Amino acid sequence: MGKDEKIEKKGVSRRQVMAGAGMFAATAALANFGGLIKNAEATGGSTENWPWPYKKLDPAKTAEIAYKEWYRVFCGAAVINSVVGQLREKVGEPYTSFPADAFVFLEGGQVGWGTICGSSAGANIVANLIIGPRVAGAHEGHEISKDLMQWYSETALPTFTPKNPKITAHLPTTISESPLCHISVGKWMKEANKPLKSPERKDRCARVAASTAYRLVELLNEWHDGDYESSSDFSAASEHGITGQFNCMECHGADVPEPPQA
Amino acid sequence: MGKDEKIEKKGVSRRQVMAGAGMFAATAALANFGGLIKNAEATGGSTENWPWPYKKLDPAKTAEIAYKEWYRVFCGAAVINSVVGQLREKVGEPYTSFPADAFVFLEGGQVGWGTICGSSAGANIVANLIIGPRVAGAHEGHEISKDLMQWYSETALPTFTPKNPKITAHLPTTISESPLCHISVGKWMKEANKPLKSPERKDRCARVAASTAYRLVELLNEWHDGDYESSSDFSAASEHGITGQFNCMECHGADVPEPPQA
Repeated sequence: MGKDEKIEKKGVSRRQVMAGAGMFAATAALANFGGLIKNAEATGGSTENWPWPYKKLDPAKTAEIAYKEWYRVFCGAAVINSVVGQLREKVGEPYTSFPADAFVFLEGGQVGWGTICGSSAGANIVANLIIGPRVAGAHEGHEISKDLMQWYSETALPTFTPKNPKITAHLPTTISESPLCHISVGKWMKEANKPLKSPERKDRCARVAASTAYRLVELLNEWHDGDYESSSDFSAASEHGITGQFNCMECHGADVPEPPQA
Repeated sequence: MGKDEKIEKKGVSRRQVMAGAGMFAATAALANFGGLIKNAEATGGSTENWPWPYKKLDPAKTAEIAYKEWYRVFCGAAVINSVVGQLREKVGEPYTSFPADAFVFLEGGQVGWGTICGSSAGANIVANLIIGPRVAGAHEGHEISKDLMQWYSETALPTFTPKNPKITAHLPTTISESPLCHISVGKWMKEANKPLKSPERKDRCARVAASTAYRLVELLNEWHDGDYESSSDFSAASEHGITGQFNCMECHGADVPEPPQA
């Protein structure tokens, strides 16, 4: 069933309703506050408009590209290029001008500092690049990022096995309970008993990039078809009064501090 | 002393030497491996070229912009816009086409998940956007990211006070020992005894964005003048055999696990 048939069937898609509401909110904000969306001083003539034109991609093909790209530009830029590269061919601008290779630095949780896994960071960038930021009235990019980080934390990764892997031996999967590179890679290294610089660890991370690209494209395709619904059920700010993950005791032990409350 | 005089004085700047070495490396790689820099399948006609043209910015003016922008687009996009917005006016493309507002999702350590502070993530993006990725032969963007995360972790933040702050009462400063939003914000909240949604916590984060933008522009200006030298003295991969920070015992206590070694 194509997109137009689906919209015909439903009358109006969820995405159209939300885009319409966002447009109203944006217009109202501009009228009332004189520039919530565009700040002339800061953005100086930007051509930022959302959503960017999107054509549905094949998740498995995207994952294969991400896997190969990992060995050229590492996790974050591999995920970005797996989507942006295909859309450069299918759509052209604004994807052509987006400097995807600049994001090599996402590797190792940002230049080796072990913060957010580059695959997650890259996927978040792609979702928000295409759908746009919540301050412009679109909430689905924000929601997809939350979904992806929860999926990453709760899933035995990697989920995707490439057709022609560089490592043919079995690689274990691990659940990180965290979107952080340090924790995700550390738990896998412990399970596999392989060092950071081993070919197996590298191939595991290439497959995690591929797995994340696969999941990202599934969500973008749903969004494109008006079928996207957020699956994330966690908000650290609401539940715990501080930004964070759901693995409090992993670092804090039984002594989880209580943040100051309003 | 202007840039040309400085180059004249020194003969050849450090940056020129490194850019030249990078160009040679890139040419050699293309000749030998047929596409380390450009992967036709993945990038499909990209116009990615580095470095992007850069004009020196005033750190204090940039910080004031970042402070104001925080209240529109939050930490990550505020840092990005504080630099990109000015360069749109001073340079034009490719900054005009860069979708800076898409990075609102960096807020709260990426949509509230408390991973890397959005100010650090935004600064890393700007440095690598302008200087380019290490796979294209330029290492200074990578190095500046390491410098900035170490500076962020070791410095009593915020360092910058805006001319007309929204909160006029004294705000404490704290050293995070980490680039993670959860830890940086948590330590500040504990010291200030203020909840996440308080105006004081928000203004603290706006000032952290401003402080980071200030430091970023100092480093970019040094790079532009050929005077940049990396100050980072930490590599988790080399020292500990895993990606990470230098605050191992903060989460692990005395029982820091030993990762599998080669």
